[in-house]
Amino acid sequence: MATHKVVIQPSGLTVEAATGALVSEAIQQAGLEVAQPCGGQGRCGRCAVQVEGGARRRSSLRLSSEDLQAGYALACQTVIEGDLTITIPEQEKIERRMVTDKAAARIGLPFPYSSDLQGVHAFRLSLPEPNLQDNTDDLTRLSNGLTLAGYPHVEVPLGMVRHMGEALRQSEWTPWVALELRSWSRPEGPPRLLDLRAEPIEPLGLAIDIGTTTVSAHLVNLSSGEVIETAAEYNGQIAFGEDVISRIIYASKNDGLSSLTQRLQQTIELLLDRIQKRTGVGGDQILKAVVAGNTTMIHLFLGIPPAPIRVAPYIPTVNLPAVYLAGEIGLPINPQAVVDCLPGVASYVGSDISAGALACDIATTDHLTLFIDVGTNGEIVLGTRDWLITCACSAGPAFEGAGVVDGMRATEGAIEEVWVNSTTYEPTYRVIGGGKPRGICGSGLISLLAELFVTGVVDRAGAVKLELDSRRVRQGDHGPEYVVAWAAETETGRDIVLTKVDVDNLMRAKAAIYAGFTVLAASVGVSLSDVEQVLVGGSFGKYINVEKAVQIGLLPDLPWERFRFLGNTSLQGTYMALLSLDQRQLLAQVARQMTYIELSADNSFYEAFTAAMFLPHTEIARFPSVAEIWEHNSAREPAPGGATNP
Amino acid sequence: MATHKVVIQPSGLTVEAATGALVSEAIQQAGLEVAQPCGGQGRCGRCAVQVEGGARRRSSLRLSSEDLQAGYALACQTVIEGDLTITIPEQEKIERRMVTDKAAARIGLPFPYSSDLQGVHAFRLSLPEPNLQDNTDDLTRLSNGLTLAGYPHVEVPLGMVRHMGEALRQSEWTPWVALELRSWSRPEGPPRLLDLRAEPIEPLGLAIDIGTTTVSAHLVNLSSGEVIETAAEYNGQIAFGEDVISRIIYASKNDGLSSLTQRLQQTIELLLDRIQKRTGVGGDQILKAVVAGNTTMIHLFLGIPPAPIRVAPYIPTVNLPAVYLAGEIGLPINPQAVVDCLPGVASYVGSDISAGALACDIATTDHLTLFIDVGTNGEIVLGTRDWLITCACSAGPAFEGAGVVDGMRATEGAIEEVWVNSTTYEPTYRVIGGGKPRGICGSGLISLLAELFVTGVVDRAGAVKLELDSRRVRQGDHGPEYVVAWAAETETGRDIVLTKVDVDNLMRAKAAIYAGFTVLAASVGVSLSDVEQVLVGGSFGKYINVEKAVQIGLLPDLPWERFRFLGNTSLQGTYMALLSLDQRQLLAQVARQMTYIELSADNSFYEAFTAAMFLPHTEIARFPSVAEIWEHNSAREPAPGGATNP
Repeated sequence: MATHKVVIQPSGLTVEAATGALVSEAIQQAGLEVAQPCGGQGRCGRCAVQVEGGARRRSSLRLSSEDLQAGYALACQTVIEGDLTITIPEQEKIERRMVTDKAAARIGLPFPYSSDLQGVHAFRLSLPEPNLQDNTDDLTRLSNGLTLAGYPHVEVPLGMVRHMGEALRQSEWTPWVALELRSWSRPEGPPRLLDLRAEPIEPLGLAIDIGTTTVSAHLVNLSSGEVIETAAEYNGQIAFGEDVISRIIYASKNDGLSSLTQRLQQTIELLLDRIQKRTGVGGDQILKAVVAGNTTMIHLFLGIPPAPIRVAPYIPTVNLPAVYLAGEIGLPINPQAVVDCLPGVASYVGSDISAGALACDIATTDHLTLFIDVGTNGEIVLGTRDWLITCACSAGPAFEGAGVVDGMRATEGAIEEVWVNSTTYEPTYRVIGGGKPRGICGSGLISLLAELFVTGVVDRAGAVKLELDSRRVRQGDHGPEYVVAWAAETETGRDIVLTKVDVDNLMRAKAAIYAGFTVLAASVGVSLSDVEQVLVGGSFGKYINVEKAVQIGLLPDLPWERFRFLGNTSLQGTYMALLSLDQRQLLAQVARQMTYIELSADNSFYEAFTAAMFLPHTEIARFPSVAEIWEHNSAREPAPGGATNP
Repeated sequence: MATHKVVIQPSGLTVEAATGALVSEAIQQAGLEVAQPCGGQGRCGRCAVQVEGGARRRSSLRLSSEDLQAGYALACQTVIEGDLTITIPEQEKIERRMVTDKAAARIGLPFPYSSDLQGVHAFRLSLPEPNLQDNTDDLTRLSNGLTLAGYPHVEVPLGMVRHMGEALRQSEWTPWVALELRSWSRPEGPPRLLDLRAEPIEPLGLAIDIGTTTVSAHLVNLSSGEVIETAAEYNGQIAFGEDVISRIIYASKNDGLSSLTQRLQQTIELLLDRIQKRTGVGGDQILKAVVAGNTTMIHLFLGIPPAPIRVAPYIPTVNLPAVYLAGEIGLPINPQAVVDCLPGVASYVGSDISAGALACDIATTDHLTLFIDVGTNGEIVLGTRDWLITCACSAGPAFEGAGVVDGMRATEGAIEEVWVNSTTYEPTYRVIGGGKPRGICGSGLISLLAELFVTGVVDRAGAVKLELDSRRVRQGDHGPEYVVAWAAETETGRDIVLTKVDVDNLMRAKAAIYAGFTVLAASVGVSLSDVEQVLVGGSFGKYINVEKAVQIGLLPDLPWERFRFLGNTSLQGTYMALLSLDQRQLLAQVARQMTYIELSADNSFYEAFTAAMFLPHTEIARFPSVAEIWEHNSAREPAPGGATNP
């Protein structure tokens, strides 16, 4: 058998390897470590290295086309066939590639996005000084000056009149003014006076995404489109309930609504304080705001009772809010600033989804596209430029870590990815922040469940196989469970486990979402396999591992290249609407265009849900790539009874 | 000498009287009392009786043409020349004739004033119930219903959206709505939703007059024009200063402005509480408000710093406020109600004057008219339908009782009218409420000063003649003074006096107002004697005694018939503007039409003021009726040196 010269970079070590040897074996031969948490099964992607020369890739799971073009190969799945050079990327580079480059690959959004159509204009005005012969009042003098500057009939809100006398005199009758020339609610004007100061005014705007869990904001220079600063913070309402339903219930208690509204205002205040500390820009300098959020969050933001959202026929009070003034809402920016809450579609498909649809271009594409936003709920849009159909799946908050014994939100100390060795069943995990684990976040749960399934620790019905020869599986207080981390390794000093009940909750959540896909596709007569691109939005989507999500049947089994991870599409669409009234117009069209399907009124949903309550699905044929792995593994064990036809 | 039979009614007593005897003598001969507080000089008008038969009136001062037509004559000035019947009116009737019929004779105002142009419309709406197939949101459902009812594009304020969900469901989708179809600020619409309830809605409005001293309001049924209730209360700001200048100074202190604004809000709340107690109508049912007041009061009402009003060149921040929402102002009515603050003319000619000008018809008359409103300040309008000229005289608050040792406001215990016997110099006075006196109010001060002047107690320069043989004149702590009431007669147990310093203050006040007349007339080249009607507005004007006011030189010396007393013209004009957008339009024209003369910038004012610092005036020829009385009295004493040419 021929041997080949293998150079390993950046160390420069050289080893001889026989034809047919694995790249991973050559690396180990040189005395170097190669990470193989999946046990060398080509599933985790952690052993990716760059290879140049005689090598053949047996499998390239978890590698994108960009990765392949850059010469990446999985060390455990690549066979040596000639001389070659292997470059082991730095650990940090692997992390970034895994988390950022791939998982958060951003669709080509026009950042920064400059537009003449943002509507706010600031400039300096020169007025004649008053005297005893010209005793025109301040307001009329200002209006005359604005008319001469080309802006007749400017509306001046009371708040501006209140500060006008001082500002005009301080500026010695040459004040800076900010006008809203046009807004979404009145594209034809008249202009409104937003600000009047002795000091120069920069037109600044705020894009806000109000999530059930997280509130995020961009401070934007409206002239240049530059995102000056970004901040995000947990929604302070969490103290009153983790999901929208518990918030709605809380809102109907005495003072519950105003407490929730205040909490949200305080959260935004916190963001603005942080922005001010970093940039020196105070809230009162912000002259325009655009807001997206799910329908319940928008109701709570505006102080509107959300109760009807929760009871049949699930009617929100408002899907298409008018623009209101910051002062009347209680948003702590310039009280004269208009606040444009973007249009939603229905009680459970809010403006976060319409903004996301704008950002992800689903309404302008020729390709059959599936847009999903898995946050605390799962909302789905399917369609092309010609039609759009949408629904919401009450997935529950399992993917936010709620309803799971050791579940937690994706903060420091959360296990965010897990690999299980298919021989030893021992896990390897990555913890956010790098310290000891405290629990498992959503992406960690998906990853863990997928690993347990493909390594055979749980069966297709989600049962933990206690008969396995591993101390990791055991009968716990909550029934059968798998131990991810021993007490000694954890921050809390307690074992971190995944129980059978947790598995059931996760399966219900993933089944609800997959059933949503099924119902949408069926309702327009297309097959999920026809979907040409899957666009994943939401902060959760940013860290989701598609391969694992496919393995548990959360996402449809499509080629890797069809998936794109867009990050916070809601905030991106909000930013676009802030900067361009044309984009705002387009967003309104998109919201109108979306046909909403109420799943609770749809019998086919229940059937689809039941069918999806297996790993990955009752009809495993829907998941060919998973079937392949599973069949390979299941050679070692019997298939669950009647799994293909429950 | 012939004797005549005199029958005295209603007693039926008969006496014989000689030719040339006075009616008052015949009455006394019958053993009856006749009130002659002026000492039978025909000045006080208190001895008016009805006569039928042989009698000749020597003088009819204080009697109107209506009085004469009704057979009234002054008993002290009517000579018996044949048989006659005398009817002595009841005391109560005299009072009413004096105070109400004459002093508050109302110009022919169209009360109640019904108009289709008031702009607010209330009706019941029927909406289709939502269901799972028709899951339109509440706001869109309401908008669709309004469109079907003939009202497309209705603007729905956030406050309405907040209550909409509950109101629609409570009303079982047949809510009552109130729309503002058009308002002053947008005569062309679009309509705005003002109210949405399950219960029937009546369109109600509020007219408010904010005086420096008193705030008055009418609750009005906007459909019928009926004034449902009226209430008035002292302006709670009085605690922070009696006049506008001290309020402006207070407003520039820390929190001063917001304290003043709050006090005013509390005063209006008090009025509304009282209205609610009497009528059951809560503030939240009031859907429209129109407000008048002097420029400082309007600034304070709207929370606008009034500081520039006080410093040259006396520029207010706003003369023509836009309409604002009750909620943003803090007016405790329906927060969605528009509040229309009427237009003023200048810093010291506010919307109380333009509303008054509307109410008194000065802008539509062919007759040269002088409209004056003597409140805490004195504002004057001179003109006809073709031109209007206006000014404000800083009369100071002397006529409000301030700056006068025993001055007080016109409340219970105030001496409101005084007569001085020209022989004994003893006074007779009338006290508001009829009890013991506590001080002297504005009308009492005018009356007292006039009596002291015509009886010779004070000279034309305003000096108290200490040399008179009366214990009423004396050297007091504050210099020479006249005692109106002895300590034993008063509520306070102290003498009530008028000092030389008080007289000086009153003379400065009256001189400022008369100088205003002079400057206005001169500036357009007319003579004050050409004035065809003098219209006196303001709550003070309601109780002013014209004859006395002429005697001290406060009002021009014109025939009695040319004077009319209109009461609160500001509130009347406000009521008209509330009920008719046409009247509101006319009011705006009137305000624009008025040419303002800033007296502080006018040298001729100072000359006119100095000339008016005599009783009644340096040029006594300007006051022929006063000259006649004074010359008659001054036969007993020397004229003041150089009085006609100081």
